[in-house]
Amino acid sequence: MAQLRIALAQTNPTVGDLSANADKLIAWTRDAAEREAHLVVFTEMFLTGYPVEDLVLRTSFVDASIRTLEEVARRLLDEGLGDLPVVVGYVDRAGLAPRVGQPKGAPLDAAALLHKGEVVTRTAKHHLPNYGVFDEYRYFVRGDRLPIFRLHGVDVAIAVCEDLWQEGGPVSVVGQAGAGLLVAPNASPYEKDKDDVRLELCARRAREAGCGLVYVNQIGGQDELVFDGDSIVVNAAGELVARGRQFKEELIVVDLDGLPVSEAEPGTYPYDAGDGSTITVERLVLSSEPVAAYPAVPAVIPQPLDVHAEVYSALVLAVRDYVAKNGFQSVILGLSGGIDSALTATIASDAIGPSRVNVVLMPSRYSSDHSLADAQELVRRQGVNAQVVPIADIVNAFEKEIDLSGLAAENLQARVRGMILMGLSNENGHLVLTTGNKSELATGYSTLYGDSAGGFAPIKDVPKTMVWELARWRNANSDPGFLLDAERPIPENSITKEPSAELRPDQRDTDSLPPYEVLDRLLDDYVEKDMGSQELIAAGHDPALVTRVIRLVDLAEYKRRQYPPGPKITPKNFGRDRRLPITNRWRESTG
Amino acid sequence: MAQLRIALAQTNPTVGDLSANADKLIAWTRDAAEREAHLVVFTEMFLTGYPVEDLVLRTSFVDASIRTLEEVARRLLDEGLGDLPVVVGYVDRAGLAPRVGQPKGAPLDAAALLHKGEVVTRTAKHHLPNYGVFDEYRYFVRGDRLPIFRLHGVDVAIAVCEDLWQEGGPVSVVGQAGAGLLVAPNASPYEKDKDDVRLELCARRAREAGCGLVYVNQIGGQDELVFDGDSIVVNAAGELVARGRQFKEELIVVDLDGLPVSEAEPGTYPYDAGDGSTITVERLVLSSEPVAAYPAVPAVIPQPLDVHAEVYSALVLAVRDYVAKNGFQSVILGLSGGIDSALTATIASDAIGPSRVNVVLMPSRYSSDHSLADAQELVRRQGVNAQVVPIADIVNAFEKEIDLSGLAAENLQARVRGMILMGLSNENGHLVLTTGNKSELATGYSTLYGDSAGGFAPIKDVPKTMVWELARWRNANSDPGFLLDAERPIPENSITKEPSAELRPDQRDTDSLPPYEVLDRLLDDYVEKDMGSQELIAAGHDPALVTRVIRLVDLAEYKRRQYPPGPKITPKNFGRDRRLPITNRWRESTG
Repeated sequence: MAQLRIALAQTNPTVGDLSANADKLIAWTRDAAEREAHLVVFTEMFLTGYPVEDLVLRTSFVDASIRTLEEVARRLLDEGLGDLPVVVGYVDRAGLAPRVGQPKGAPLDAAALLHKGEVVTRTAKHHLPNYGVFDEYRYFVRGDRLPIFRLHGVDVAIAVCEDLWQEGGPVSVVGQAGAGLLVAPNASPYEKDKDDVRLELCARRAREAGCGLVYVNQIGGQDELVFDGDSIVVNAAGELVARGRQFKEELIVVDLDGLPVSEAEPGTYPYDAGDGSTITVERLVLSSEPVAAYPAVPAVIPQPLDVHAEVYSALVLAVRDYVAKNGFQSVILGLSGGIDSALTATIASDAIGPSRVNVVLMPSRYSSDHSLADAQELVRRQGVNAQVVPIADIVNAFEKEIDLSGLAAENLQARVRGMILMGLSNENGHLVLTTGNKSELATGYSTLYGDSAGGFAPIKDVPKTMVWELARWRNANSDPGFLLDAERPIPENSITKEPSAELRPDQRDTDSLPPYEVLDRLLDDYVEKDMGSQELIAAGHDPALVTRVIRLVDLAEYKRRQYPPGPKITPKNFGRDRRLPITNRWRESTG
Repeated sequence: MAQLRIALAQTNPTVGDLSANADKLIAWTRDAAEREAHLVVFTEMFLTGYPVEDLVLRTSFVDASIRTLEEVARRLLDEGLGDLPVVVGYVDRAGLAPRVGQPKGAPLDAAALLHKGEVVTRTAKHHLPNYGVFDEYRYFVRGDRLPIFRLHGVDVAIAVCEDLWQEGGPVSVVGQAGAGLLVAPNASPYEKDKDDVRLELCARRAREAGCGLVYVNQIGGQDELVFDGDSIVVNAAGELVARGRQFKEELIVVDLDGLPVSEAEPGTYPYDAGDGSTITVERLVLSSEPVAAYPAVPAVIPQPLDVHAEVYSALVLAVRDYVAKNGFQSVILGLSGGIDSALTATIASDAIGPSRVNVVLMPSRYSSDHSLADAQELVRRQGVNAQVVPIADIVNAFEKEIDLSGLAAENLQARVRGMILMGLSNENGHLVLTTGNKSELATGYSTLYGDSAGGFAPIKDVPKTMVWELARWRNANSDPGFLLDAERPIPENSITKEPSAELRPDQRDTDSLPPYEVLDRLLDDYVEKDMGSQELIAAGHDPALVTRVIRLVDLAEYKRRQYPPGPKITPKNFGRDRRLPITNRWRESTG
């Protein structure tokens, strides 16, 4: 039986910024070496960032990924870190002949083992997720290998992310082939309560494989996704040994003991992977001698975040990274005095600091007195930059030229506000944040090119009832990572008053929508759980409301898709747009 | 040797409108019966329309598809059409146990044979395209069957769309199993010059399989896609026997002779499909006796459209169907006097008739005299509905409240125009058409929420040089399908004058962009052919221009994606939006 000290690099890479990611690999490996780790494991596609979307179809990008991997292996040696083995994800290519439907260049979602200046072995993800947020059949071809390298006598297998989630394939072979440890680079996006699912999965796979499991996950905001870290180490019995914090970059160092010492013969061995494929196990030896016994560092298992802390932290990280990775210095948003814009401003202040947050108060003829006062109170509490731009004269100028009534006239006001924000954004370089919540966006209670005009929508996935909960939570809690230092940053009146869009006299949200407690339960079942109308009624929702809300949601979705932001540029004259990641530092023009 | 008369139903279904599609199946089958066909073949997923995107993940939708198939089989019998076998595409489900990553309900891109009131056999697409505009690993599981039914002594195999394009799978089994004819329902989107590729493919597959091939393709606009028809019949030697017209619904009736008569035993037989899978051939018999010899109808092979007729017809059909399938009655657009809006207006007049086209002339302080005059000349020639809304006073009202300069001030003017169009759209129910061409959209020469605000962008995939070509072509040509009856509908001055956005004094497009002939060649290589910077330089493009244009294109793409139209509603708190087809008549609330 042997000991090993493993370092899990729970990192926040930037998509396309190969050189910055490589620098981070060197720095974190040095940290791991100083903490006397025997192995350091980075995340899935760490060198390129994840997800890279259609960038992976560019030959020059895949070339750069492979070149960066080889360069970083040599740099580790040059900087005296060559003896510490590193497992890291990157993009490689399979070298297959082109055929119809195969992604250009046959890219691989790959991982490599670096040691003594060399790329010792390479592998790639076998199971390609193509559901939910994943489109990997579009981007990758399958890997068909399972490397097992001997490190101080212990056989360590490498598998990538989704291969843990699916039955069959490389992970199913680990048990047959025999390994003392399985390490898995991941890029697993945050979902509410996913931490419980991940732990259960890791424990099950460890028991099936009969070995410990080191699960290293990315953190950080990447466009529409947030990665939460939550890296996990379990032993062969499936018991939790160590865990990373959520939403924080950290190098987690964990000591494992009781690992089996192997003397299996090096070489390549084919295995039936139980999913119709054959996986080639490659056994190789870095070092056979177990390390001398040493005192273990105490394992760390952080207290899990409660649901509000978890969601709020995800939103702060999403805004911070979207701003930083897009190269913005500041944000701008309209502040109405209502709860949605108040919470959005607070998230922004926590993410990038109030001095980089600009708010515009845009009262109209229908704005109530308390709206302006509540907005000004938030400005006072948080110290954000504020300006007041009344919209009445501009609305009048439009109405002199064209006759609009009803909803068209309401939309006009929202659009004038959107144009003011976009104008100030164009003039000063601020990123426009929109302030719509999920309940109103889902039901279409929003104006295209009006309140929905902007670059990032921090609370678009937060139902209205949770908007209130998060506001109350934030008034009672903080976190050392938040950049806003203010007591009760959100005015109580913004939380307690009745919601209104104030686009016509005495308007109330409940004129158009059911009460939010009722609406949000129904939206959760329809949008999140994807239940059909019969299921919704069977689950106890009012049948008339089911019909009405489904109609609103579907109509809102059609409207959003009918009205694209600007037409997409599609290759082949018609069809799907090229999907490049937004927050991305790769430039074909300079690559 | 035997004869058969086959009817190819080259149809334009509406996504989600199961009952209208079913009615169309009955009507077209009656037409085929009156023309004494022995078999009628409809397109891929005809009963549901194609593509249905995330609708296929709804249990109630798949239920409705299966129910509609069974109902339509009985209706055919009830209406005296039960003796005429019908092959039709629809959505079925595989009945597999759920597992991680498998689309909810395990849907199948299916086809069925209907005869004598029954669903005689069912099959489903084996190769799932997941490239370009296709995302089928997200939506479907694979089929693994090849039905071969005997019709008047001839063995007829059924395979769906992509199974023709890929090596291995059901089509590779046709030759081994022996069939006299292969019929293939398709939904193959239009691309420029794809007709040549299709014919070559059909000819090759027919020769490989040693039998004739009947390829039936959908027509019609469906959101971002246009289907062009171009159905094909080839004999076993790969020679073209008959062909459908492009962009027209039609029932193509073709007589085949010299078909082999089969006496193979009915039953099920497994075959190695050459792609690692086993395909089960199901042989069944509808009728063994060859039809008595009869005089064949002459085959029709239409003259192919020239490139301008082809592209222009695609644009007209795309607009017509987007308007009709979304339930709009009319369109509105800004008419500047320039060529882009002139061509867009003409396409709209051809698509839905000039009386349903509304144009708004929105001169600013920078508009030249000829702009208004050229726009008015188009109104006169086409008879569209026009109104003039000057924007100077509205722009002034904004500038009184906020200071904008340079590009921000230019964008303001474009946004005021966008708001006027959206306001009139909201007030009157018109669909807003945007007028940007591919060259300017690709390079970001466009304003978000300004000229890009709207629901459909007819010429977004047309490079500027082709905009001019299409305008000249349309002034010289017409088509019986066009609804505009006008001599030279586009004023010559709009075609010949130098392009300008007129957002500042004496502005010219060439202030910001290279000449369009140079730009379009480069864009074609970068966007359509996906060449990297080294390849572009090697292909002879100026290196400095390559760097500059790639930067513009990538930046424009990031900007478009940074600024979504309205935030998307994503399930699971973060992630991908539900992708429902826009032009879609299915309603969960009523289904």
